[in-house]
Amino acid sequence: MRLQMTDCLEAKGGEVSARARAAELGRSYLALNATGRRRFLTLLAEEFGPDRTQVSLAVEALQAAHSEEESRRSERRLRDSLVPHWRRLLMRFNALPEGVKFLVDLRAELVPMAKDSPELTDLDADLRELLAAWFDVGLLELRQITWEAPAALLEKLIAYEAVHKIRSWEDLKNRLDSDRRCFAYFHPNMPQEPLIFVEVALVDGMSAGVEALLDEDAPRTDPHAANTAIFYSISNAQRGLAGISFGNFLIKRVVDVLEHEFPSLKTFATLSPIPGFASWYASAVEDGQGPSLTAPERRALLAALGLEDDDSGDSDLVGRALAVEGWWRTTALSEALKAPMMRMAARYLLTAKRSNGTARDPVAHFHLSNGARMERLNWLGDPSPNGLRQSSGMMINYLYKLSAIDDNHEAYSDGAQIASSSAMRALVRG
Amino acid sequence: MRLQMTDCLEAKGGEVSARARAAELGRSYLALNATGRRRFLTLLAEEFGPDRTQVSLAVEALQAAHSEEESRRSERRLRDSLVPHWRRLLMRFNALPEGVKFLVDLRAELVPMAKDSPELTDLDADLRELLAAWFDVGLLELRQITWEAPAALLEKLIAYEAVHKIRSWEDLKNRLDSDRRCFAYFHPNMPQEPLIFVEVALVDGMSAGVEALLDEDAPRTDPHAANTAIFYSISNAQRGLAGISFGNFLIKRVVDVLEHEFPSLKTFATLSPIPGFASWYASAVEDGQGPSLTAPERRALLAALGLEDDDSGDSDLVGRALAVEGWWRTTALSEALKAPMMRMAARYLLTAKRSNGTARDPVAHFHLSNGARMERLNWLGDPSPNGLRQSSGMMINYLYKLSAIDDNHEAYSDGAQIASSSAMRALVRG
Amino acid sequence: MRLQMTDCLEAKGGEVSARARAAELGRSYLALNATGRRRFLTLLAEEFGPDRTQVSLAVEALQAAHSEEESRRSERRLRDSLVPHWRRLLMRFNALPEGVKFLVDLRAELVPMAKDSPELTDLDADLRELLAAWFDVGLLELRQITWEAPAALLEKLIAYEAVHKIRSWEDLKNRLDSDRRCFAYFHPNMPQEPLIFVEVALVDGMSAGVEALLDEDAPRTDPHAANTAIFYSISNAQRGLAGISFGNFLIKRVVDVLEHEFPSLKTFATLSPIPGFASWYASAVEDGQGPSLTAPERRALLAALGLEDDDSGDSDLVGRALAVEGWWRTTALSEALKAPMMRMAARYLLTAKRSNGTARDPVAHFHLSNGARMERLNWLGDPSPNGLRQSSGMMINYLYKLSAIDDNHEAYSDGAQIASSSAMRALVRG
Amino acid sequence: MRLQMTDCLEAKGGEVSARARAAELGRSYLALNATGRRRFLTLLAEEFGPDRTQVSLAVEALQAAHSEEESRRSERRLRDSLVPHWRRLLMRFNALPEGVKFLVDLRAELVPMAKDSPELTDLDADLRELLAAWFDVGLLELRQITWEAPAALLEKLIAYEAVHKIRSWEDLKNRLDSDRRCFAYFHPNMPQEPLIFVEVALVDGMSAGVEALLDEDAPRTDPHAANTAIFYSISNAQRGLAGISFGNFLIKRVVDVLEHEFPSLKTFATLSPIPGFASWYASAVEDGQGPSLTAPERRALLAALGLEDDDSGDSDLVGRALAVEGWWRTTALSEALKAPMMRMAARYLLTAKRSNGTARDPVAHFHLSNGARMERLNWLGDPSPNGLRQSSGMMINYLYKLSAIDDNHEAYSDGAQIASSSAMRALVRG
Repeated sequence: MRLQMTDCLEAKGGEVSARARAAELGRSYLALNATGRRRFLTLLAEEFGPDRTQVSLAVEALQAAHSEEESRRSERRLRDSLVPHWRRLLMRFNALPEGVKFLVDLRAELVPMAKDSPELTDLDADLRELLAAWFDVGLLELRQITWEAPAALLEKLIAYEAVHKIRSWEDLKNRLDSDRRCFAYFHPNMPQEPLIFVEVALVDGMSAGVEALLDEDAPRTDPHAANTAIFYSISNAQRGLAGISFGNFLIKRVVDVLEHEFPSLKTFATLSPIPGFASWYASAVEDGQGPSLTAPERRALLAALGLEDDDSGDSDLVGRALAVEGWWRTTALSEALKAPMMRMAARYLLTAKRSNGTARDPVAHFHLSNGARMERLNWLGDPSPNGLRQSSGMMINYLYKLSAIDDNHEAYSDGAQIASSSAMRALVRG
Repeated sequence: MRLQMTDCLEAKGGEVSARARAAELGRSYLALNATGRRRFLTLLAEEFGPDRTQVSLAVEALQAAHSEEESRRSERRLRDSLVPHWRRLLMRFNALPEGVKFLVDLRAELVPMAKDSPELTDLDADLRELLAAWFDVGLLELRQITWEAPAALLEKLIAYEAVHKIRSWEDLKNRLDSDRRCFAYFHPNMPQEPLIFVEVALVDGMSAGVEALLDEDAPRTDPHAANTAIFYSISNAQRGLAGISFGNFLIKRVVDVLEHEFPSLKTFATLSPIPGFASWYASAVEDGQGPSLTAPERRALLAALGLEDDDSGDSDLVGRALAVEGWWRTTALSEALKAPMMRMAARYLLTAKRSNGTARDPVAHFHLSNGARMERLNWLGDPSPNGLRQSSGMMINYLYKLSAIDDNHEAYSDGAQIASSSAMRALVRG
Repeated sequence: MRLQMTDCLEAKGGEVSARARAAELGRSYLALNATGRRRFLTLLAEEFGPDRTQVSLAVEALQAAHSEEESRRSERRLRDSLVPHWRRLLMRFNALPEGVKFLVDLRAELVPMAKDSPELTDLDADLRELLAAWFDVGLLELRQITWEAPAALLEKLIAYEAVHKIRSWEDLKNRLDSDRRCFAYFHPNMPQEPLIFVEVALVDGMSAGVEALLDEDAPRTDPHAANTAIFYSISNAQRGLAGISFGNFLIKRVVDVLEHEFPSLKTFATLSPIPGFASWYASAVEDGQGPSLTAPERRALLAALGLEDDDSGDSDLVGRALAVEGWWRTTALSEALKAPMMRMAARYLLTAKRSNGTARDPVAHFHLSNGARMERLNWLGDPSPNGLRQSSGMMINYLYKLSAIDDNHEAYSDGAQIASSSAMRALVRG
Repeated sequence: MRLQMTDCLEAKGGEVSARARAAELGRSYLALNATGRRRFLTLLAEEFGPDRTQVSLAVEALQAAHSEEESRRSERRLRDSLVPHWRRLLMRFNALPEGVKFLVDLRAELVPMAKDSPELTDLDADLRELLAAWFDVGLLELRQITWEAPAALLEKLIAYEAVHKIRSWEDLKNRLDSDRRCFAYFHPNMPQEPLIFVEVALVDGMSAGVEALLDEDAPRTDPHAANTAIFYSISNAQRGLAGISFGNFLIKRVVDVLEHEFPSLKTFATLSPIPGFASWYASAVEDGQGPSLTAPERRALLAALGLEDDDSGDSDLVGRALAVEGWWRTTALSEALKAPMMRMAARYLLTAKRSNGTARDPVAHFHLSNGARMERLNWLGDPSPNGLRQSSGMMINYLYKLSAIDDNHEAYSDGAQIASSSAMRALVRG
C-alpha cells in the first residue's frame, strides 16, 4: 500500500498517469474492510504529512530574510512546505468516476475514527479544508425539490431526513405538495446528492404542533393565501461534510425565494425540537434544581394524579405525573404539567450555556447564530415517542425577522446574548 | 475602499452578511477603470496579506514544540497564520451571481499587472492556487461541441480560437461537421464558458497541411472509415486560468472518447504550428548559423532566383529567395527552399533548448511533456500569412502513440530527451 | 349548453375566439357530474352530427356526375358533408391547457356509456378516429423508464399496472433494477402520461414463474450475461385510447432496443397469465367436458385426497382437489392435479375460439396477432390469489422468434392458425 | 413501384411489417429525381383513391336505410369508403425516422405540381387534411428563440426569413437582443424546425421605418421601459404546410406572453410591407387611374424635377420622378412624391378588393382577418431595393387593439369591412 501511495505521488509518466494510478488506489481502498481502511488512513496520516526538513529550512530562510521581498518569498516557501503530501494524493482521487463523492464518503468514515485517534486529526482537518474549498456555498446550487424529482433523489430525502422521520412515500408526497416547499443545496459534481435540505409549510399563523403538518389527510391549502412560512425540518445529508456549514445560507436563500414567490408571506419561523432538554432536565432534577411548583400547580397535579395532598416533595409530583403511561393523552395530567414543564424548558433554552457561553441546546445555537430569536414555546407540539422522550413533547418557534437578523446575530456572536420574545422571558420568571 | 475591505473581512452580522458585502465590493471593482482596479488589487496585496505577528508566534511555538503532537499542532497553526487575509475576501466574491467567472476575469487582469509589479506576485500566486483547487480537472466536464450548441457558446469559440482564426460562421460549421469533432472542458459553475478546446479532423492518413482541413467546400468524408484523428487546433480560452494546465488531460480524454466511438482509428496525431521558429531562425542567421547549402541546393536556388552563380554567400541566397513576394506560390523557389528550410526547422525543433534544458518551441514543449513524439515536418503545411511569418509555412505532426506516451513523457521530464521519428532526425543531419 | 355548443361552432370573432369559447365549454364539462356529462355527450351526438341535407345533395351530385373530374369533386364534397359537426368542436377542445389529455379522458368516460347507448356509438367512433390520427405510433416516443424518472411519473406505473399489481415503491424499484427494463410509449403532448408500458426481466433461461421475478430480495444478476428477455407485464394505461393499438409496436421496438443493448440475448418471450381459463373451464365442466382422467391420474388424486377408490365420477375428483384450501401448497395434491389441469389449459389455449375463429383467450389473441407462438405452459407459475382464481395458478410463455413473426402473424390473421410448440400440442393430446 | 405500394397497403405480416415496408418505399421516393417523384405521386393519386364500388354500394345502402340506426351505420360506411387508399399509405410513412418531416417535405413538392395537374388535387387536399390534424395549433408549442438556441436552429431562421432578409449572424444576433423577442411555433415531432416565426421589437412609440430596427449599431434599449411592441416580420417556414394557418394564433399568443412579461406595453402593432402595391399601381396607371395631382403637388414635382410647367400630363410627372435614380435620397423629389403616392397606397389598401370582396393586398388580408386595423402609413419606411420595388418604400402599421379584435374580425369576415384609422381614411380622400 505504501508503495502504491508513493507511486501515485511520484507521478512517473506525468499527471495523467498519476491520476490513473490514484484511481486504482481508490478502488483498492473501497475493497478494504473497516480495519483495512483505518490502516490505510493511518498510513496516509503518519507517512505522508509535511516534509519537516523542508519546513525547518523554510523557517530558517524566513528568519534570515533581509528584505520585504525575501520575507514574502520565504513565507510562500514555508506555506508550500507545510502542505502535507497526502493533500496531492487526496486531490488525485478526483480521477475516480465520482471522485468528489468518494472523498466526501471517505471523510464520513474518517470523522469518527479521528475522534479517538489523534494521529488522524490533521488528515481529517486537511480533508475538511479541501472539501470546504470545493463546497464553498458560492459554488453550490439551490434547487427546489418536488414530486417531479427523480425517485432516486427522493429516496435520499427519506434516508437523510433527521428531524421528523419520513414514514412512507405518501408521507413524502404530502411534504412536497403544493402548499409545501422543499429546498436543498447541491454540488455540481454530485447532482443527485442533496447536501442539506429544508422542508417548509405555507400556513396561516405560526404552527404550534408538527402533527398537523405531517397529517397526510389534512386538506391542502392555498399557498398564495398563506401568511406564514414554517421551516419544520432541516437535515444535513452528508456526514462527510461535518464542520462545513450551509444551514444559515440555506435559510436566508429560501426566505428570499419564498418572499419573491409568495408576496403574502409576513412571518418566517421554524417549528423546532428541543433535543437537549431531556438530559439537561434529568441532571437538573438530580441536582435538586427540578421544577418548583406554585401551590395551585401542586394542587392541580395532586388532583390529576388522584392523590390527596400528602406533603410529598415537589419534583416527585412532576416525576410521578410524567411516569404515568400516556400522561399526554390525559387532559388533567397534561394541563397540570404544562406550566411547570414549560417554565423548565424556557429556563433551559434561555439560561443553559456551554462552557464558551453559547446556548447549550444545539438547535437553539444554530438558529441563534443565524440571527433568529426564540419566539414561542408550544406545549405538546410533538407528542411522538421521540418528541416525548427528547422534550416532554414541547417544540419551539424560532422567528426569522429579516430586519433584526444581523443585530441578533451580532449580539449572540459577540456576547452570547440570546434574542427572545417577552413571552419566552415571562415563562422563565414563572 | 480599505474600509469596505476590512468590513467584508470582519463579518459583522455573520457570514451571510459578509458575503453580501463582498458582492457589493465586487460590484464596486467592476465599476472601476484600469487604474482604479490596479489600485484596488495593490491595496489588497499590500494590506491584506498574512498576519506577520501571528506567523512569528507560530514559528516560535513550532520551534519550542516538545512532542509530536505539539509539533503537529504548531505546524497547523503556522500554516493557518500564513494564509493571507485576502484569501477569505477572494472566496467571498463567490457570492456574486457569477462569482467564479468574476474571479477568473479578475485574474485575467491581474496576471499582466503582476508581471511588472512584484508586490502583486503573491496575490496572483494565491489566486492561482485557489482557482487551481476549483478548476481541478477532476471537477471539470468534458463536452463535445456540435452545431447544435447554443450560438452564445459557439461565438466564444470564434472569439477564443488561437491557432487558426475562425473566419465566419460557415468556417465554424465546417469545423463542427460530421467528420470533425470539437471537445472542450467546462466548469460546472461556468457552464457556457469553454476553458480549453480542441478541434479534430477524422481523415485518411496523417494530414500534411491545414488548408485542406479548413476548406469549407471540401467534401465531407465518412468518419467511420477514417484511420487517423488529427488534432489541428488547441486553444486555451481563459487567460485567468494561466498556469493551470488542462491540455494534457484534454488530449488523452479525447483520444479515449474517439477510440471508443471510431474503432477504425489507428493514428492520433496533431497538425501543429512551430510558433517560435521565425525568431530563432532570425537570430541563427544573425549569429552566422543560418542554413548551409549543399552544392545542388545552391544551384537550385540560383536558378530559381534567375541568378548566375556569382559566389555570393549562402545565407544570402536563402534570404533573397524568402524575400521574393509570393515565393511559396512559385514552384521553383518553393522547391529550392524546401530542403534547407526543413533542415533548419528540424534543427530548431530537436536541438534548440530553453535554459532549463526543455524544448525551446512552446508547442513542442507542450506535446513532448504530454508524451508525444515529433513525427513529420510538412513543407508549406500552412501557407497563410501567419504561417509564413511564424515558420516559413511549415507545420509539424506530433504523434500520440498510446503505448509510448508514458515512456516519452518520462524521458522528456527527467532528462529532456526528445522523442522523434527517424525521419525527423535524418532531416537534421541533412 | 346547446347554445354554448352552437356558439363554439359558429365562431364569431374567428378561430382564436372560437377556441377560447371551446375551452370554456370544456371547463363547464369538467364541472358536471356523471349525469350531466352523459347529457352533454348525448346532446353532442344527437344534434351535432353530419348535416343530412348536405349529405343528400352531395349524393345527388355524385350520382349526376358526368366526368371524372366531377366525380372526384363530388366525392370530396360528400366526404366533407359526412364529417359531423361535433368533430370541429372536439378538435377545439385542444385549446384547453392539457387539451389532448382532456379528450383522452373524455373518451375514457364515453366508451362505457356508448356500450349501452347506441346514440353515442358514432360519437365514440369518431373520437376514436381523431385520437387514432393523433396517437399514430409514428408520432409516439418510446422511452425507457428507470428509477431516475420523476416520482410523479412512477406513481402512474403503480396506478396503471394491470397484470401483476405493484405492491409498494420497493416493489417498483425492484422492477426498475439494473437487470430489468421498463419501456413505455409517450405522446409528445402528454409527456408525463405513459400510454402503454412493458416490464422486462433479463434472465438466464425462460422464466417459469412470476414469483421469482417479483421477489425484491432475489439477488440482482448481471444483465450482460443474460440470454433471455422475459416480458412479464404489459399494461395499457389510458382507457380513453381503447381500440387504438400500440402493443405490437411496443414489443417489437423493445426487442430491437434490447438486442442492441444486450447482444447476448437469444430468446425473447413473455411470461403471461391465462385470464380466460377459469370461466371457460367452469362451463366446460358444466357441459360435461371437464378433465377426463387416466387411471394413474385418478389413483394419484384419490391418494392425495386421502380417499379410497370409490368409483366416484372424474370431474368430481379434480373439483374436490381444487376445493381443498391451499391445495397448491400441498405437494401431493398439486402433483396430482398438474397433468389433468395442464391438459385442460392446453386444450383451452389451442382449441377454444371466438365466433370469428380467433383464440378465445384475450392475451393469447394479442400475442398470436403479433406473431408469437405458444411455447410452454408453467404449472403454478403464478400462485397468487389472482393467479389461482384465473388459471389455477398456470402461466404460459409466448415466444417471439424474430424470423418467424411475420409467418406466424399471417397464418393467424388469414386462417386463425395458432403457432405452438410441439410440447404444447403434446399436452392437448395428453 | 405500383407493386411496392400495393404491398405496403395489403400489409402481409401485420401493421409493423407494413410500416417497415412503407419506410422502404419512402426511401425509394427520396432517391428519385423530380420526374420520378411526379410519376410516383401521380400513380398514387390515380390508382390509390377511394374504392368506387364500395362508395356506390354504401350510397345505395344509405338511400335504402329505414331507421335512424341504419342511416347512421350507412353514413359511417359511406364515409369510410370515401377514404382514399393512399391515406393509409401516407400515414405509414410516419415509420421513417423523421416521418412527419418527410410528409411535410413531400407536400412542399406536391403543392406546386398540383397547381398544374388536376389529377393531383385530391391527393394534395387529402394530405393537407392529414397534416392539418397533426399540426392542429393545440398540439403545437410556442417557444421563444434566443441567442442561446442551437446554431442548427438559428440558421433556419436565416434561411426562412421572408420579409426582411437576415444578412449575417450579427444581424440575427441583433434581432435576438434583449430589447427584441422572437417566437415560433414548433411541432413536437419536428423539434428543430420552426413552423412560423415572428420578430418583435420593444420600442418607444410606433415604429415608422424598418431601418432603425435592423441597425446593428443602434443602442440597445431597456425593454421594461418600452410602451410599444412592433411585430416587424412574420414568416411561414414550411411550404409543405401551405393552407394550414397558424399566424393568427401566433400573434395573439405572443401578445399574451408579452403583456405578461412587460406590463408597461400599451400598443401592439406591426410594421408591415405592402407587397401588392407595385403591380396594382402599374395597372392603375395603365388604366388611366394613376395619381391625380393637386396644383401645389404638381408644382412641387415640376420644381423637384427641374422642369418648367409645360402642361405635360399628371401621371407622367410622378412616373418621371419615380424614374429618377435614387429619388428617395433626394429630399425635394421624395417630398414632392410623398402626398400623391401615399394617397395611392391608401386607396390601394382601403379599396382594392379581390373578387370575393376581401382586401387585395395579401398582408392586409392576413392582418384584417386577425382583427387588426390599418393604422398608419409610413413614407419611406423601407427604402431597401425590395421595399422600393414593392411599395415605393412605404410601410404600414396594423394595430392590434385587444378590445377591438373580435369586432374587427367579424366585420371583416361577414362584410369585408376594413377597420382603419381616421388618418388612413383621410389619406384616401386626399
